[in-house]
Amino acid sequence: MVSEPLRRLQEALQELPGIGPRQALRIAYFISSLGKVRITELARAILRLTELRTCTQCFLTHEREGAFCAICGDETRDQLTVTIVERETDALSIEKAQIYRGRYLILGEVRRDSELSIEQKIRLNSLLSFLKERGGALEIIIAVNQTMYGELAAERIEEYAKSHTKKITRLGRGLPTGGEIEFADPDTLAHSLKNRR
Amino acid sequence: MVSEPLRRLQEALQELPGIGPRQALRIAYFISSLGKVRITELARAILRLTELRTCTQCFLTHEREGAFCAICGDETRDQLTVTIVERETDALSIEKAQIYRGRYLILGEVRRDSELSIEQKIRLNSLLSFLKERGGALEIIIAVNQTMYGELAAERIEEYAKSHTKKITRLGRGLPTGGEIEFADPDTLAHSLKNRR
Repeated sequence: MVSEPLRRLQEALQELPGIGPRQALRIAYFISSLGKVRITELARAILRLTELRTCTQCFLTHEREGAFCAICGDETRDQLTVTIVERETDALSIEKAQIYRGRYLILGEVRRDSELSIEQKIRLNSLLSFLKERGGALEIIIAVNQTMYGELAAERIEEYAKSHTKKITRLGRGLPTGGEIEFADPDTLAHSLKNRR
Repeated sequence: MVSEPLRRLQEALQELPGIGPRQALRIAYFISSLGKVRITELARAILRLTELRTCTQCFLTHEREGAFCAICGDETRDQLTVTIVERETDALSIEKAQIYRGRYLILGEVRRDSELSIEQKIRLNSLLSFLKERGGALEIIIAVNQTMYGELAAERIEEYAKSHTKKITRLGRGLPTGGEIEFADPDTLAHSLKNRR
């Protein structure tokens, strides 16, 4: 009973992060109800993404002329301090903290088996050869998500990168701002005790 | 730091049901990472929705030639038994139960103030004039969602439609299949007691 165009779009939408088959179908119906003009606008907004480039240095997407994103192209930023994140949105969140003046490497999401994928190794190697030419990094900050397999992946990245940097660190762990002790999980509390100030 | 095309798409995506600004941005980044071919495919899948028609009788979308959807065009189905649902996906779910042989009226989502919108009144009126020509419905089943404002809207619909049908009913309420009594809310339990078999 679901018509072919809706079924097709449902299939495409359920590939997107955080969208299951039910929501995908609801969204497909919702879009179909928007009318020709708005449907076309949405399709165009998606097509515009094909104009984006990927920074050849950090793999952030950007729409600047040339190979580098705004951060890698910014000479006032410290290019020898590198934060390794999984996703672009992680870099955005760190930018919002307005405290970091180095650059990034977008690694891509860590796999559940914590092994580095071929693409991730290519990205790390491109960083390491960049650093080699410049006598190594001042600091590499590993900022993968603080999950169990994130921690394991962080160890692998450290192994990979440690000979190319003066210092290698990870994000601090402990209670989040506004975090209530009563509701904190034991692991977070253990870290907050170990890292007490 | 988020480039203009991503920001635009984020804005468009967060209009979709169940998608907040954060997920919208994640999805936009995800789509941008898919590469030209898959981005274009997704945009095309969306554009194909403009080919869909809306059934002039029940307001389901379809891609058939002519004005009617497969259900309204099916002469083996009882056109004088009508289930009024909020969304197309509700009709799909009822179809999956494989027990219903009448037709539908897609009403659109019930408003939080439970008042019928102008569009909803137009749809109900088109149903009622269809029924009038045929001497009234055998049964109208009001199948809006079982929320507080759904119940109120159901009363309004009943008021509107009752003089055009022999019978007017609502979906039964009680414990869902597999529902555990311990975790059922008091209202559900009250209904399951009232409707005990």
